[in-house]
Amino acid sequence: MRSGMTGKLAGAATLAAITCGVAAFAQEAEVPSASDVSAYVDNTYLFLLGGLVVMFMAAGFCMLEAGLVRSKNAATQVTKNIALYSIAGLMFWLVGYNLLYPGDGNWIVEGYIGTFAPWETADDLGTGYSSGSDHFFQMVFVAATASIVSGTVAERIKLWPFLIFTAVLTGIIYPIQCSWQWGGGFLSAAGFSDFAGSTLVHSTGGWAALVGAIILGPRLGKYVDGKTVPMPGSNIPLAALGTFILWFGWFGFNGGSQLAAGTFDDINAVSTIFLNTNLAAAAGTMAAMILTTILYKKTDSTMAFNGALAGLVSITAGPLDPSFPVAILIGAVGGVLVVLTIPLLDKFKIDDVVGAIPVHLVCGIWGTMIVPLSTEGTSFGVQALGVVSVGAFVAITSAIVWMILKVTMGIRVSEEEEMEGLDLNECGVAAYPDFTK
Amino acid sequence: MRSGMTGKLAGAATLAAITCGVAAFAQEAEVPSASDVSAYVDNTYLFLLGGLVVMFMAAGFCMLEAGLVRSKNAATQVTKNIALYSIAGLMFWLVGYNLLYPGDGNWIVEGYIGTFAPWETADDLGTGYSSGSDHFFQMVFVAATASIVSGTVAERIKLWPFLIFTAVLTGIIYPIQCSWQWGGGFLSAAGFSDFAGSTLVHSTGGWAALVGAIILGPRLGKYVDGKTVPMPGSNIPLAALGTFILWFGWFGFNGGSQLAAGTFDDINAVSTIFLNTNLAAAAGTMAAMILTTILYKKTDSTMAFNGALAGLVSITAGPLDPSFPVAILIGAVGGVLVVLTIPLLDKFKIDDVVGAIPVHLVCGIWGTMIVPLSTEGTSFGVQALGVVSVGAFVAITSAIVWMILKVTMGIRVSEEEEMEGLDLNECGVAAYPDFTK
Amino acid sequence: MRSGMTGKLAGAATLAAITCGVAAFAQEAEVPSASDVSAYVDNTYLFLLGGLVVMFMAAGFCMLEAGLVRSKNAATQVTKNIALYSIAGLMFWLVGYNLLYPGDGNWIVEGYIGTFAPWETADDLGTGYSSGSDHFFQMVFVAATASIVSGTVAERIKLWPFLIFTAVLTGIIYPIQCSWQWGGGFLSAAGFSDFAGSTLVHSTGGWAALVGAIILGPRLGKYVDGKTVPMPGSNIPLAALGTFILWFGWFGFNGGSQLAAGTFDDINAVSTIFLNTNLAAAAGTMAAMILTTILYKKTDSTMAFNGALAGLVSITAGPLDPSFPVAILIGAVGGVLVVLTIPLLDKFKIDDVVGAIPVHLVCGIWGTMIVPLSTEGTSFGVQALGVVSVGAFVAITSAIVWMILKVTMGIRVSEEEEMEGLDLNECGVAAYPDFTK
Repeated sequence: MRSGMTGKLAGAATLAAITCGVAAFAQEAEVPSASDVSAYVDNTYLFLLGGLVVMFMAAGFCMLEAGLVRSKNAATQVTKNIALYSIAGLMFWLVGYNLLYPGDGNWIVEGYIGTFAPWETADDLGTGYSSGSDHFFQMVFVAATASIVSGTVAERIKLWPFLIFTAVLTGIIYPIQCSWQWGGGFLSAAGFSDFAGSTLVHSTGGWAALVGAIILGPRLGKYVDGKTVPMPGSNIPLAALGTFILWFGWFGFNGGSQLAAGTFDDINAVSTIFLNTNLAAAAGTMAAMILTTILYKKTDSTMAFNGALAGLVSITAGPLDPSFPVAILIGAVGGVLVVLTIPLLDKFKIDDVVGAIPVHLVCGIWGTMIVPLSTEGTSFGVQALGVVSVGAFVAITSAIVWMILKVTMGIRVSEEEEMEGLDLNECGVAAYPDFTK
Repeated sequence: MRSGMTGKLAGAATLAAITCGVAAFAQEAEVPSASDVSAYVDNTYLFLLGGLVVMFMAAGFCMLEAGLVRSKNAATQVTKNIALYSIAGLMFWLVGYNLLYPGDGNWIVEGYIGTFAPWETADDLGTGYSSGSDHFFQMVFVAATASIVSGTVAERIKLWPFLIFTAVLTGIIYPIQCSWQWGGGFLSAAGFSDFAGSTLVHSTGGWAALVGAIILGPRLGKYVDGKTVPMPGSNIPLAALGTFILWFGWFGFNGGSQLAAGTFDDINAVSTIFLNTNLAAAAGTMAAMILTTILYKKTDSTMAFNGALAGLVSITAGPLDPSFPVAILIGAVGGVLVVLTIPLLDKFKIDDVVGAIPVHLVCGIWGTMIVPLSTEGTSFGVQALGVVSVGAFVAITSAIVWMILKVTMGIRVSEEEEMEGLDLNECGVAAYPDFTK
Repeated sequence: MRSGMTGKLAGAATLAAITCGVAAFAQEAEVPSASDVSAYVDNTYLFLLGGLVVMFMAAGFCMLEAGLVRSKNAATQVTKNIALYSIAGLMFWLVGYNLLYPGDGNWIVEGYIGTFAPWETADDLGTGYSSGSDHFFQMVFVAATASIVSGTVAERIKLWPFLIFTAVLTGIIYPIQCSWQWGGGFLSAAGFSDFAGSTLVHSTGGWAALVGAIILGPRLGKYVDGKTVPMPGSNIPLAALGTFILWFGWFGFNGGSQLAAGTFDDINAVSTIFLNTNLAAAAGTMAAMILTTILYKKTDSTMAFNGALAGLVSITAGPLDPSFPVAILIGAVGGVLVVLTIPLLDKFKIDDVVGAIPVHLVCGIWGTMIVPLSTEGTSFGVQALGVVSVGAFVAITSAIVWMILKVTMGIRVSEEEEMEGLDLNECGVAAYPDFTK
């Protein structure tokens, strides 16, 4: 993976030894220097802590989706979320991690498809961080991708076929496209830039969700006589909680993607990333709230939430280089895009229950394409190459998997089950048995 | 800002060089020493991680308030919370940060009002931490102040006027009074002590809330024929979650305010702060529970929550110096004060929906005034000076802003809207459409 | 306590001094070396941050239990949770910490019962971490034990007798058995191994809960005519949130139990622990989901949650040594055990509202007994000795306390109160007044 390690600071002991000119010291120099160990610890802490708060984003997606589905489907939705996080962890360990990081000479097709060499820890002070912490950090990103799909296809998809799709997405589809960039594949070679994954993580989830929503079809009664029937979410406070948890986790998502924290430059970079991430999210929230108030005279709560997430996705491709006003601009445009895209999807009768496609796909593309404004050495052409190649690969492979599942086991519950709610039939429990019939 | 950096430990390389008496080494000494970098990283980590958990307090306030309002206003309440956090971030960047830290020669009125010089990062190893991390850390404190106001004025205030008030509070009012102490202004020069902000953060929020509640008036039907009509919160489990999140975040609030973590003394101080903070909160909880059980024969859940928060606010002015039993005492008195003050407010027909004034204003004053018991070099007189000057400034400026908003755009929804609930009219969504009519 | 400090890396300054052979340097050597301070800070950070996320598990238990009780008891349940966390902090400070760590010469009965010597901070660079951070870290573990009991005895226990039991459990019962291992007592001497507390924390909570459930009796109407009447939880999304929070906190629980993070080996160990913990939880979730789907044709959401927790408890006794496939196996067996044990308890009419006994007691034993598979120097015999001695001690002492409470003040609410719900009578508030009558 990208090495953020600079090794600029020679260990104090080494320095002193050279200065004193004591030849006998040469041997002791192989003892790891205190500053190398310190940087190794600091870097690993970044992966572990960053990964930990990103892990918590699984709870954020879970709450957001639980709040935005109707109460008759909420138990199934949260069960899907805990299962998809579990599957992501198992599949990414089993095959994903190696597909993502084939390393020198481990490609089946150089730069495009890696091998499944069994993964094991082999820590080395020279790498600058614990490989286990990197595995953990990358794994929680895969889980985020799967969570994105979950929200879009809610309220009508069968539980187990969805989980099988999740296994393929997290174990194979995600890692292959990700290896093109973070594994040192052809996009990386071409100069593509996607700091924390607007394309690799968010638009990947968005493409899989889009294709899934089309193949699955809209919820019963969603589009009637050319009109879109509102199906309001059942628990807005939980959706707000989910949004806050995601915002919280995003500091790990973007900040941790600096990949190093043991030097002056690295920890300053993490600080800048925190500020840019927060400003973009804030701008996305306010832009979406102002625009909906102008357009509809009311300040739709769910638009505020999606505005925040839009700002976050938009800044994810390049949270380090933009100046603060540019970060605000990037986030605000993201918020506007979401407000404009949500009704557009309805026009095409693409039923996205939580608005994940506008947030993660549309803003994922926007965030990736705007990188050249702030980041030297990037170009719109190469950014477009990344967006298109990842999009084509994910859309096509996802469509194949969705179609196979549709033909073999079916992906959609029966009409009766959908009307009754998935909870009774899929999970056998009601989400709120004391409040609803 | 206050420098917690002690620089007691000379870098190992420097020490060795001096001892060896090698003159040629002088040049290398300008390379940052490993221990300086290590402390810089440790300090910055403290700001980033402390700030991150304080950021999550925004979710805590949001859940607490969502749980304590009636269901017809819950969607508006959570929308206000996500908006106020966004506005705090934008305004504090735009003007607040510079007002708070004018620095030498940058005051318009020396010690009282700073300038709006544009903020930019200028990191220097010698400062001991990344300035971006400090900005982030201070910003989340401002957001907490705004959250306090939000709870008190709930269920009858218009959304957008409230947000404009938030912009003024977070961009101007908070930073100016904060600069008097943390920006090196006159309170700091006088010897005022307010470690993490019982006065600067909590009573500031409390004063703005109190003045707002008075100008806004109580909810319709709250005080009828001299009696206080209970308007129970709609979701007690969410309020409990909010309390736990706030307690969690408070370790960052108080612990991070040590402002340094790279030395033996600093990290020990952070540890002591963690314990004192927890003991005070625990004592506040139990004192409030025991007292309500004695007074009312039942253990009101919301009093338990407010007791915990009371303990936390009370210890915030001085979480480092008190011995453990004194920390317990400070927290317990806070819990008692809240139980006694809540009915008192009702007597004056001041309608504080969540009890924020007793928690943040009353306990903020209590916590500040008790500092001299444990902290050498402080005096009750100077502490009172801080309490009164901050209180007068915030109450007066807040009143002016509230009054301007009242006269120009109005701050209160119509009676019909208030009866129907703010959600339908302000946000156009219901918080729980499946459970309520 | 166990020292994870290895002290492998001599400070750079010391090394250089020896090499240069400058006698005069001897004095300066007493200045703490930069690397010692750095490790001290890193280690203390581990305790503080690990403790912080474990503290948040209190919120996780609270949400899990709030979601799994009926709505008429939910306010009381969350109030109990905030009170038990408070009591744990106060009691562990007052007596527990010293009982746990008697230290040399401070045992009343050597290796079995310590003294109550008053606790105070005495930090020393040589210990490698701040003692306050260790106190904080251990305290949040005690709170977890109390939370376990809370879930099992829900919906029929009186509030205050429960809290008195909590005080004895957290102040006396837990610390005494814990001192046998982590305080250097007889189990530690015998070679018992329980890394983060499958036995010491989880089965201790499980035994206290089991004895409590038996003495308390089942809820009214739970077992009628030999049949088990389902009493479904009222808020499944909150239970899912609780599960995710617990999973999140468990990284601190297990990772922090490495007790050191300042060296290459320690931080690598923490990384491995993160991965094993996550894989075991994922495997527990999927095993429980697959098994319930096979057995009952539906994928019970609460079984998914308990499967995750089962995996977590199972790996807690030894999260460092197992290979990844073995960690998966340990977690999966845990998930299976929970699905099989829950109906078994019902057969014996032991009413465990949230399934805490299968999760924490059964999987706690399983996790402890499987340690010798991966950890050298451990034996099934000694592991069984630990399980049995802790179990006997906790079960007997808990039974005595429960019986005394039953005889003196009564532990069960009246039949009328139980039918009406505890909230109205114990707390005087309804959890969801707008949704239920």
